[in-house]
Amino acid sequence: MNMRDVISKKRYSQELTDEEIKFFIDGVVNGEIPDYQTSALLMAIVLNGMSDREMTTLTLEMANSGEINDLSFLGCKAIDKHSTGGVGDKCTPLLMPLVASFGINMVKLSGRGLGFTGGTVDKFESIEGFNCTIDAKDFKKHIESNGMLITGQTPNLAPADKILYALRDVTSTIDSIPLIASSIMSKKIASGAKAIVLDVTCGEGAFMKTPEAARELSKAMISIGKLAGLDVTCVITAMNQPLGKNIGNTLEMMEVFEVLSGNGAEDLVEVVTTLAAYMVKSSEAEESKLSVEEIKKICCERLKNGTALEYYNKLIIGQGGYVHSTGSPVYKDYPEQVLTLTAPCDGYVTAINAQMIGNASVELGAGRLVKTDELDFGAGISVHKKIGDKVSRGDTICVIYKGKMAEINEDRLEKAADLAYDAFEFSTEKPAHEQIIIDVCC
Amino acid sequence: MNMRDVISKKRYSQELTDEEIKFFIDGVVNGEIPDYQTSALLMAIVLNGMSDREMTTLTLEMANSGEINDLSFLGCKAIDKHSTGGVGDKCTPLLMPLVASFGINMVKLSGRGLGFTGGTVDKFESIEGFNCTIDAKDFKKHIESNGMLITGQTPNLAPADKILYALRDVTSTIDSIPLIASSIMSKKIASGAKAIVLDVTCGEGAFMKTPEAARELSKAMISIGKLAGLDVTCVITAMNQPLGKNIGNTLEMMEVFEVLSGNGAEDLVEVVTTLAAYMVKSSEAEESKLSVEEIKKICCERLKNGTALEYYNKLIIGQGGYVHSTGSPVYKDYPEQVLTLTAPCDGYVTAINAQMIGNASVELGAGRLVKTDELDFGAGISVHKKIGDKVSRGDTICVIYKGKMAEINEDRLEKAADLAYDAFEFSTEKPAHEQIIIDVCC
Repeated sequence: MNMRDVISKKRYSQELTDEEIKFFIDGVVNGEIPDYQTSALLMAIVLNGMSDREMTTLTLEMANSGEINDLSFLGCKAIDKHSTGGVGDKCTPLLMPLVASFGINMVKLSGRGLGFTGGTVDKFESIEGFNCTIDAKDFKKHIESNGMLITGQTPNLAPADKILYALRDVTSTIDSIPLIASSIMSKKIASGAKAIVLDVTCGEGAFMKTPEAARELSKAMISIGKLAGLDVTCVITAMNQPLGKNIGNTLEMMEVFEVLSGNGAEDLVEVVTTLAAYMVKSSEAEESKLSVEEIKKICCERLKNGTALEYYNKLIIGQGGYVHSTGSPVYKDYPEQVLTLTAPCDGYVTAINAQMIGNASVELGAGRLVKTDELDFGAGISVHKKIGDKVSRGDTICVIYKGKMAEINEDRLEKAADLAYDAFEFSTEKPAHEQIIIDVCC
Repeated sequence: MNMRDVISKKRYSQELTDEEIKFFIDGVVNGEIPDYQTSALLMAIVLNGMSDREMTTLTLEMANSGEINDLSFLGCKAIDKHSTGGVGDKCTPLLMPLVASFGINMVKLSGRGLGFTGGTVDKFESIEGFNCTIDAKDFKKHIESNGMLITGQTPNLAPADKILYALRDVTSTIDSIPLIASSIMSKKIASGAKAIVLDVTCGEGAFMKTPEAARELSKAMISIGKLAGLDVTCVITAMNQPLGKNIGNTLEMMEVFEVLSGNGAEDLVEVVTTLAAYMVKSSEAEESKLSVEEIKKICCERLKNGTALEYYNKLIIGQGGYVHSTGSPVYKDYPEQVLTLTAPCDGYVTAINAQMIGNASVELGAGRLVKTDELDFGAGISVHKKIGDKVSRGDTICVIYKGKMAEINEDRLEKAADLAYDAFEFSTEKPAHEQIIIDVCC
């Protein structure tokens, strides 16, 4: 078998055999296949596609390129969730305590952020003392005492995906359903999950720009799940404006605390309780026999009555984080208001470009442009008006915050303010209400 | 400008600007663009194509990546010919003296062979003493005394093409009309030609398998010629069996001598005189005013009456080659008959797979598998029966020759014999006669 023939087959839209896909991934990982052959095959896959069987084999070979986490010590079916990325997405810190409150033990492996979508690990690390590097040998101890833990991804998790992703990033081969689906699913399979709830975001601020594209990606991941023996549920959610209110590490964790105190933004609560409900449905918990609506109702109650907050604080304290006597976490840095943007006219907010808001937050130092960038935990943006809200000229539409850690650069502040301001669109007509949950596929 | 964006445009089937194509070729030549980005773009071009303008810009940038030969000293319009490759193709050694007999001065830059299509330089080098490395400063002297010269390609001829071709070879991106057309045309433009006659071969033994594909490639090269200000004529010729009789370096040059002695195979004479006629039509020679048929008639006469042979011997002697008193060249090695293959049945020859015959000759040592392979000049195959010929069981269909230079390897001899034997197909019904000249496009 040689790589030239493998590329040639895909160039002529033929299906690759399992052996050919294994040969490719083995060669990528052991360095025998040069990058120029890999990138030629990736472009051929982007343009000529892959069958469900090819995608599944690719996913499993990528998962098997490193260690597969053994989560059998959990004592229950391993459930995981993943988001394809959004702006202001703070679902994981909310889902973990909610799901734990159903007695479902959960190990969450999470990445750091790059670009305009923040990483969950970064968000947790805005809490003073919080340790996101838990050694695998200590997993059991954490689960026994708290029922959950969150940690950064181990370096040997699906190494083939890391190599391919780095190459895709510089060869314009990111945007491809089979390559996105296999990348996501390989990491989830390697993480040891047996059931996965995927938040497939859709809109300007997401990978998938349209509901059709989001459904196509969902279909691909569900098909991989079926062939690989995993339960996969895809919840397609709108990302045509930032989720909830705040963008930025400390700001988002502050919003998480607000939601856990019963004061969550409507769209955020809807997404979080829906995802939680499907996670519970996929589990072996007693409540999995209830309907999704019934579980959602329980989740809403637990956000209101302090149950979820109790579990959250167990997680924080369990991983070394500091909590005030009021129940709120202690942050490394507190956001300081630097600029207030106001509505230029009377009317209604009709659009808030999530990608622009995300890029504005990166300018402020809340996200990374390159992997080595230091984060400014306190920096970020708080959105005060959302789509459909009525505004009068001069009303605050959003507030820009700086952190105490870094000196604010005036040029970047101005650029961030321009981006945030331009993200908003107004009209005298109230826009039609759009559902945040677009579809659920499984 | 960055390469990722250039790749992305082509991935989404957008036209690249002239600046983007220049950026790409500059970066390939100066090493700033890594191979993995180049191969991703090549695959995107293979699958999404290029417009005529893009192809022309690519061709000109590739030509300009090295030195452009200045042939103004010729004192006439510089004419060149090129074949897209065939088995048994010995047209160039026949065309050079024919064209020179019309007073057209010609510098032929030619390559060495790789794979089953032999290189013209290799064929000339089978002649004892013949020197195929003429320094550019001596071109004028050769032209003044002989009216023609042949030499290996200079290292600085379209270096971008060399880099891209090497990468295309290992990334299955050879088979692409815009990439083949720009590769051929860039070298011809860099060689200094102002008019080009292209022998576009078509069939099993050629790059282009069907007349439609050959017409498409012709159309692309003619379009590049128009936009770049060159006369381009494409003669589409059948390559569904080896051209003429012999395959192998000395064997082919022996056949050239036979043709120049008035005893040429019909198909070979037809192709050579047609190509010569279009070369004369493209020139400023007096005879360019005649019709193609009239010029062909003159060419046939000059092959019969010894005029072409006279010019041929001037070329051989002018470049240091030895010629017997009989007028035949002296060869470095003489083929020795080792095996005779015979017809297994009575009937007609209906097919001779040119690629298989070509591969058989490579097994014998007549061609190279890798660039560093030594050639065995005497090795090769002589085809005794061609498509449409009647055979009786036991008739010789082809003869296999070894050279004196190398010890024959029994395994490879057997493999060659099997390939050559299997290349022949027979039927009791006489096949319909097919024209060797399929079409002429200009």
